[in-house]
Amino acid sequence: MLSKRLIKYFKSLQLKKYRHQEGKFIVEGAKGVVEVLQSGFKVDYLLATAEFKSSLSEQLLQKAREVIEVKESDLQMIGTFLSNNAGIAIVEMLPQSPFALPLDEHVLALDDVRDPGNLGTIIRIADWYGIKHIVCSLESADFYNPKVINASMGSFTRVNVVYADLEKILSENQMPVYGALLEGENIYKSDLSRAGIILMGNESQGIDKALEPLITHSIHIPRRGGAESLNVAIATAVILDNFFR
Amino acid sequence: MLSKRLIKYFKSLQLKKYRHQEGKFIVEGAKGVVEVLQSGFKVDYLLATAEFKSSLSEQLLQKAREVIEVKESDLQMIGTFLSNNAGIAIVEMLPQSPFALPLDEHVLALDDVRDPGNLGTIIRIADWYGIKHIVCSLESADFYNPKVINASMGSFTRVNVVYADLEKILSENQMPVYGALLEGENIYKSDLSRAGIILMGNESQGIDKALEPLITHSIHIPRRGGAESLNVAIATAVILDNFFR
Repeated sequence: MLSKRLIKYFKSLQLKKYRHQEGKFIVEGAKGVVEVLQSGFKVDYLLATAEFKSSLSEQLLQKAREVIEVKESDLQMIGTFLSNNAGIAIVEMLPQSPFALPLDEHVLALDDVRDPGNLGTIIRIADWYGIKHIVCSLESADFYNPKVINASMGSFTRVNVVYADLEKILSENQMPVYGALLEGENIYKSDLSRAGIILMGNESQGIDKALEPLITHSIHIPRRGGAESLNVAIATAVILDNFFR
Repeated sequence: MLSKRLIKYFKSLQLKKYRHQEGKFIVEGAKGVVEVLQSGFKVDYLLATAEFKSSLSEQLLQKAREVIEVKESDLQMIGTFLSNNAGIAIVEMLPQSPFALPLDEHVLALDDVRDPGNLGTIIRIADWYGIKHIVCSLESADFYNPKVINASMGSFTRVNVVYADLEKILSENQMPVYGALLEGENIYKSDLSRAGIILMGNESQGIDKALEPLITHSIHIPRRGGAESLNVAIATAVILDNFFR
């Protein structure tokens, strides 16, 4: 049963303060809910319409500690989606374990990517290209923001996103640091052969001046036309494609 | 002076029906307004805060038939932006001239891209890579939707976007048609040397089955990780980068 107390609790998780106080976050829509049930995340509650519930296997349903059948209107009241006709999962956050930078793979570093839609899209892109770790500066959008989770289209279950002081991480690291800068080297002609950290900057400010000296390889995507810039998620995709092509 | 009648008229342009009835559309925010004043578009009204107005040259101000000084709160009332502290332009739509497919350049064709944010982002990407023409299926998002104009970040002034029956256009055309299909050839190994039409599909349905036989080169972006798909704007950027690198 969906009590008033539960509704209030679920809705409170739209706010960062309450999410982190409770250590819980919400996942909305069929795609995300199925992916989180299939993942290692612990699901506290699964709110599902009768139709969506009947589409899930018994095994998946058992991954939720409690399943509550709800109406579409309940989902719209609790979630942020306008057109969620499937379900919502209330999920436990992962414990923040100390992050050790892997030494033999590509890691994405995001310097103050503030827009949750951009962060979610970047997580999906990273997952497409097989990147397993993203390090975000402390001022970046919150991984558990429903807009991040939604835009990641389930990829939040496969990419490890941590928050750290980027200046510290970059200065202590021994791998190449590839930084996307307007005055960087033509990426088509750059040597992208070694694993390293790929650093992307804030939507309007780019990469913080304090981090620039820590870049060992500055790169840019050549422009053929009139647009002044590319969105950070778009630039991330193009850069990763150049690394992995 | 910003009369009630004018406010009502400006606000009505948020709706497709009134935009096309009046042949006018709105451009919001400093970046878009400056770009449209610099372009060949005819600007009926420029609504500008005192600060934004003083940042514009006399020459740019004279491009608007009428300049009205407004408060930030007026901009928020009339426009769709939450944080526009600069200006809004009311602009004449371009006349729809009959479209002849250019024979020696790359043209982007969009089959039912419905999300205005995606269409605007794709226009910006096309502009970055120097693509001058986009042909949209008749069911695609409206070019003049404020969300399209906003997401294009000024690139709507440099890319010619037309609406047409794609089946007719593709079947009558003699150039290669590159179609993004999941079962397509690895784009890294494809011959992308010739100018042609690059066809992208709808956000959830992909390319319409009726158009598939008209594709002469089917291509796909190889996946290394777990994400099921890429957003259509992201895929467009990666594909264009492979064409022009």
